[in-house]
Amino acid sequence: MKPENLNCPLPIGDHKTVQLAHGGGGRLMHNLIRDLFLSAFESPELAAMEDCATFSLPGGRLAFSTDSYVVDPLFFPGGDIGELAVNGTVNDLSMSGATPVYLSVGFILEEGFPIVDLRRILLSMRRAAEKAEVVIAAGDTKVVEKGKADKVFINTSGIGVLPGSCTLRPANIKPGDQILLSGTIADHGMAVMCKREGLGFEAQIESDTAPLNDLVAKILDVQKGAVHALRDPTRGGIASVLNEFAEVAELEIRLYEERIPVRPAVAGACELLGLDPVYVANEGKLIAAVAPEQADRILGALRAHQLGRDAAIVGEVVSDHPGRVSMRTEVGGWRIVDMLVGEQLPRIC
Amino acid sequence: MKPENLNCPLPIGDHKTVQLAHGGGGRLMHNLIRDLFLSAFESPELAAMEDCATFSLPGGRLAFSTDSYVVDPLFFPGGDIGELAVNGTVNDLSMSGATPVYLSVGFILEEGFPIVDLRRILLSMRRAAEKAEVVIAAGDTKVVEKGKADKVFINTSGIGVLPGSCTLRPANIKPGDQILLSGTIADHGMAVMCKREGLGFEAQIESDTAPLNDLVAKILDVQKGAVHALRDPTRGGIASVLNEFAEVAELEIRLYEERIPVRPAVAGACELLGLDPVYVANEGKLIAAVAPEQADRILGALRAHQLGRDAAIVGEVVSDHPGRVSMRTEVGGWRIVDMLVGEQLPRIC
Repeated sequence: MKPENLNCPLPIGDHKTVQLAHGGGGRLMHNLIRDLFLSAFESPELAAMEDCATFSLPGGRLAFSTDSYVVDPLFFPGGDIGELAVNGTVNDLSMSGATPVYLSVGFILEEGFPIVDLRRILLSMRRAAEKAEVVIAAGDTKVVEKGKADKVFINTSGIGVLPGSCTLRPANIKPGDQILLSGTIADHGMAVMCKREGLGFEAQIESDTAPLNDLVAKILDVQKGAVHALRDPTRGGIASVLNEFAEVAELEIRLYEERIPVRPAVAGACELLGLDPVYVANEGKLIAAVAPEQADRILGALRAHQLGRDAAIVGEVVSDHPGRVSMRTEVGGWRIVDMLVGEQLPRIC
Repeated sequence: MKPENLNCPLPIGDHKTVQLAHGGGGRLMHNLIRDLFLSAFESPELAAMEDCATFSLPGGRLAFSTDSYVVDPLFFPGGDIGELAVNGTVNDLSMSGATPVYLSVGFILEEGFPIVDLRRILLSMRRAAEKAEVVIAAGDTKVVEKGKADKVFINTSGIGVLPGSCTLRPANIKPGDQILLSGTIADHGMAVMCKREGLGFEAQIESDTAPLNDLVAKILDVQKGAVHALRDPTRGGIASVLNEFAEVAELEIRLYEERIPVRPAVAGACELLGLDPVYVANEGKLIAAVAPEQADRILGALRAHQLGRDAAIVGEVVSDHPGRVSMRTEVGGWRIVDMLVGEQLPRIC
């Protein structure tokens, strides 16, 4: 992929909006794929236009992940559905310790969706794939009648290569482990909510969508085996991830509210909407449970990276109340941080 | 997966319909996944409830494919969206010569969708995966507000293992190659259309949805290198696949209409709707371009298999008009079979 082509105009073709026939398997679909998708992604695997991509990988362990994206609105401060779809699957793979290599993309388009918006999304996916150093190898497009889907939904699935020795999972978490967070929370969720509800914070709050594979590689390099579990706290926020950690590990996780970084504008927007930032989605952050003796070095590795400048040690693992997440509030009391029960923010990713 | 469990009731939980919170990343989503999805699929990779599945594969070539399913109606004679979603990706992988191994499933659910229908779809996917001998290893669920999607859309992506020497592609097609079709055409498309339009053919026309991996293995075994290209003629029918073959190979494909098997009820329904069966979708058929000296043996291998009993040699490859598909009609004239131009049958898969 040549950087100088990133902003090149993609041909729009004879139609200004998506037609049902663009999903029909015939000439129009063929042309849409050739003119728009292949120009956007420039991948030899896609260009073969076979029903599946083929490639060689070294033998051993692979990671495989899938995610559908239904975010509303499609375009929001700091990103869009296309960038989110690439970064999201890159991050899911990265959290297992894998190096993401190949992605597939599946589009469900609503009849009448403007081709110019589709083009913008495709270019955004191309840039995101280039940044994360993954290849978009396989694709599919379906079109449904106007009113039967909301503009565009995107599925990305991905394959990553796992180092033989790497096993990151919540069951590895031990008493004494330190809980690290790579930066400020709730940026993505509040960027989408503020845009959707027209709250006027657009200038101050941006999505944190970003590919975390490079950041993960850096912290796994600190010392073999020192990182016990990794997760990107998307839907349900850091509270949901930490509850999963606590449940699976059968240990208690204690958080310290004053150590959890939240941007002032994000905190303000949360307060306005009555939301607790620990439940709000992030798209470019990670939580790590790490061996205590390596916690400072891993924190240093996070902070040395552009995506981890605001990293902090926000809590620790103890064995007192298995399955519980508790948080010492800024005023000094302790409260239980349960898993999210109702729905706070639909269609946040 | 234990066969005796195939018809076991899955727990429905506290809600009769899908709630927005079932996609919110919190407790309700957690419970839905645990109670319904994990019980349905019983795969250790899914049961780990990690953000991605991990597994080992031998080094070498892999196939990777993705497809979204938006078929309307969800349930039709001979199958449903779940079975279609498993078989469709199994077949896309199989057409490259790969052995399908792992699938991912991504659901986009409309708020209010009956859990009982979701359960029916999941059980159908489980049966299909078992039959095709693939493991559902990764999953994702999103929920959108009522009216923002049509009941349920499913994406499946899949990974297959490719034998080192196997390269099936239209560019391999040579003059003299014989065109084989594994059975009757247009069954799937007409089953869906007749159900959707209430045409009353339901008793006579059933979808042909089926996993083709075993059938493909059998014909590839006949003689190494004898099969040059394989494709399952889904959207756009056999006409679109053969046009792709002719375009890529820069050769002409000649068909003989009287050799193309079509069930009488399907032919009748096509006539009633003014559709040409060569453009109608199939979901359990394959088209092969094969070396002429092995064509009869490959036809024999097809016919010896339950899914290829009606197989026929329906055409041949010549070099006269590169890129053209022509057909000798039953009355004896020749006509050009172009790629489908408009949209004939929206949401057929």
